[in-house]
Amino acid sequence: MSGGEKSLYCPASQLTHPDLISLTVGEGAKGSRDFLDRFIFSRFKGSSLAERLDAGSITCDSTQLAFTTDSFVVDPYFFPGGDIGKLAVCGTLNDLCMVGALPRWISLSLILEEGFACSHLAIILDSVCHWSERATVEVVCGDTKVIPKGKMDGIFINTSGIGVRSPIGNLFTEPIAEGDVIIVSGPIGSHGMAVMAARTPGLVENPIESDCGLLLPVLRALIENDIPVKAMRDATRGGVAAVLHEWARQFGISLSIEEPHIPVRDDVRGLTELLGLDPLFVANEGTMVLIVSDKDRETTLAAMQSVPISQQAVVIGKVVSRRHVPVSMIRGIGREVAVHEPTGALLPRIC
Amino acid sequence: MSGGEKSLYCPASQLTHPDLISLTVGEGAKGSRDFLDRFIFSRFKGSSLAERLDAGSITCDSTQLAFTTDSFVVDPYFFPGGDIGKLAVCGTLNDLCMVGALPRWISLSLILEEGFACSHLAIILDSVCHWSERATVEVVCGDTKVIPKGKMDGIFINTSGIGVRSPIGNLFTEPIAEGDVIIVSGPIGSHGMAVMAARTPGLVENPIESDCGLLLPVLRALIENDIPVKAMRDATRGGVAAVLHEWARQFGISLSIEEPHIPVRDDVRGLTELLGLDPLFVANEGTMVLIVSDKDRETTLAAMQSVPISQQAVVIGKVVSRRHVPVSMIRGIGREVAVHEPTGALLPRIC
Repeated sequence: MSGGEKSLYCPASQLTHPDLISLTVGEGAKGSRDFLDRFIFSRFKGSSLAERLDAGSITCDSTQLAFTTDSFVVDPYFFPGGDIGKLAVCGTLNDLCMVGALPRWISLSLILEEGFACSHLAIILDSVCHWSERATVEVVCGDTKVIPKGKMDGIFINTSGIGVRSPIGNLFTEPIAEGDVIIVSGPIGSHGMAVMAARTPGLVENPIESDCGLLLPVLRALIENDIPVKAMRDATRGGVAAVLHEWARQFGISLSIEEPHIPVRDDVRGLTELLGLDPLFVANEGTMVLIVSDKDRETTLAAMQSVPISQQAVVIGKVVSRRHVPVSMIRGIGREVAVHEPTGALLPRIC
Repeated sequence: MSGGEKSLYCPASQLTHPDLISLTVGEGAKGSRDFLDRFIFSRFKGSSLAERLDAGSITCDSTQLAFTTDSFVVDPYFFPGGDIGKLAVCGTLNDLCMVGALPRWISLSLILEEGFACSHLAIILDSVCHWSERATVEVVCGDTKVIPKGKMDGIFINTSGIGVRSPIGNLFTEPIAEGDVIIVSGPIGSHGMAVMAARTPGLVENPIESDCGLLLPVLRALIENDIPVKAMRDATRGGVAAVLHEWARQFGISLSIEEPHIPVRDDVRGLTELLGLDPLFVANEGTMVLIVSDKDRETTLAAMQSVPISQQAVVIGKVVSRRHVPVSMIRGIGREVAVHEPTGALLPRIC
């Protein structure tokens, strides 16, 4: 350290522990939000972090870039429909897509436990390679750390991604209004249930396949068809419920969804019922939610349904006049109930 | 997963384990190089990864950007002279500086063990904030994951950084030639020994301070003084010896250093001798090595010595005619010995 600098060194023995980090902090729900308010936004003021989007914005010459980062710690690291390598590429690229950026460059940082099987690593890296090639993004830089055996569990991967935001077609140009429709790109809750089933042998008879996948083709279809998307998010940690609550808060609106229209695969529904979970709160890794004007409902559905990953896109609800309850759901029998905000402690190490 | 995609899913039970990841893979020496050849470069061909630099290059409009990533896992996460937060900012920004890029944007991804003390996290984040402000870089995006207690150790931080590479003054414009001088920016080996001492209570009487720091002021001084730097690297994992060996291989040259000129602090030398280590192989986190023409020796030293972090910059050797031994060292008594390439298993979790 050069002279005159303030040392922030503090021996551990001099620190008190008034409170401790809990699992809820990492689960993309209210626990995460409180954590971010307390620890992050209070410090990094004026940064595009404060926009709370999936990716931050940076300007290079006249080009708007998006920059995002995500660490993946999923347990187990192989699951039906994907692995941590596919997840790390698709998850980070999806975050770029959700701010309307076309992904271009990605970094790859591995943290490995000593004794990790090279054969497993080879499969995971093949997956990184395969999915970055499919998305035509370049893996530009990387890093590898190895942790002594027992001091971590298996493999963690960080991918950070850069995308080009302009031209962004007709995205985010129109304000959200009452009567706008909420569309989901496909059946929900499958990633969370796939991981739970893979983690717990014997829990279900047949493997449940994750929706883990790349949303870039959906973004391309929306841009090519000039769809005026008003808002879009991939429904990862905290599930669709977390996205709807975030929008209610961000835009000062209320949202109402209709339970019979919410697509859930039978195997996923079976496991959520067994575990006493609601699919609305379960993580997805290749499923997005978006808001468009009711007049654009059909063109949006047609554009999305032309792409394999969103061929089951469907309207699940609409923006309603602002109420005391930010998110509500109409059940099959017509009764409307509040959808509470996910509060965390849902499923650790889901992504 | 949408229809027709090749599934890379492989149940763990069907995998064999011919070999396992060892600690040497993560230590920036020969073990790391072999790992990269086998696992990374074989897959990501044609990417700027293959240039094996501290940061990859990307082109945005007419601007050359540099992109780098690093995960930090140092144990302990507080050490004299810094903490994992300072290290994560300075380490990533230094990587950008070493390719001649001025750092602009950074990401911040936290992986925390359940039960991690919030008070410790606050100090670490203050440190991230302080050092990113000092470098005038913006923390653009972030992520937080929490791992169940016992499944990891404390805190890991990934920072990825983007810098602007042009204009880069007079850097990397001239080829390396026999007679060029090798300069080190300050005393070597202090980060590794600081961490070792902090990890092992009672090992030394007085704390050893790490060199952990920001090399950006040195880069600025080199650019402002139009110094034709031929090569530069921060001497992190594997120490100065790893940098010299990398250059020997990369440029097809041999390098000779003089032991009496190599700066090592007394407390650092004392501990290396106690542990039977050579300071040349010990990690630094705010110390760089560079090559300039002999004719630029004095202007380079003057530019570097005007900056606090490199005020003890000194010539330690020169480029010599190519020999069988890529890196050699002249001892005090005039005898020249080979400096072997670090092979790993040096110090786990040093950064």
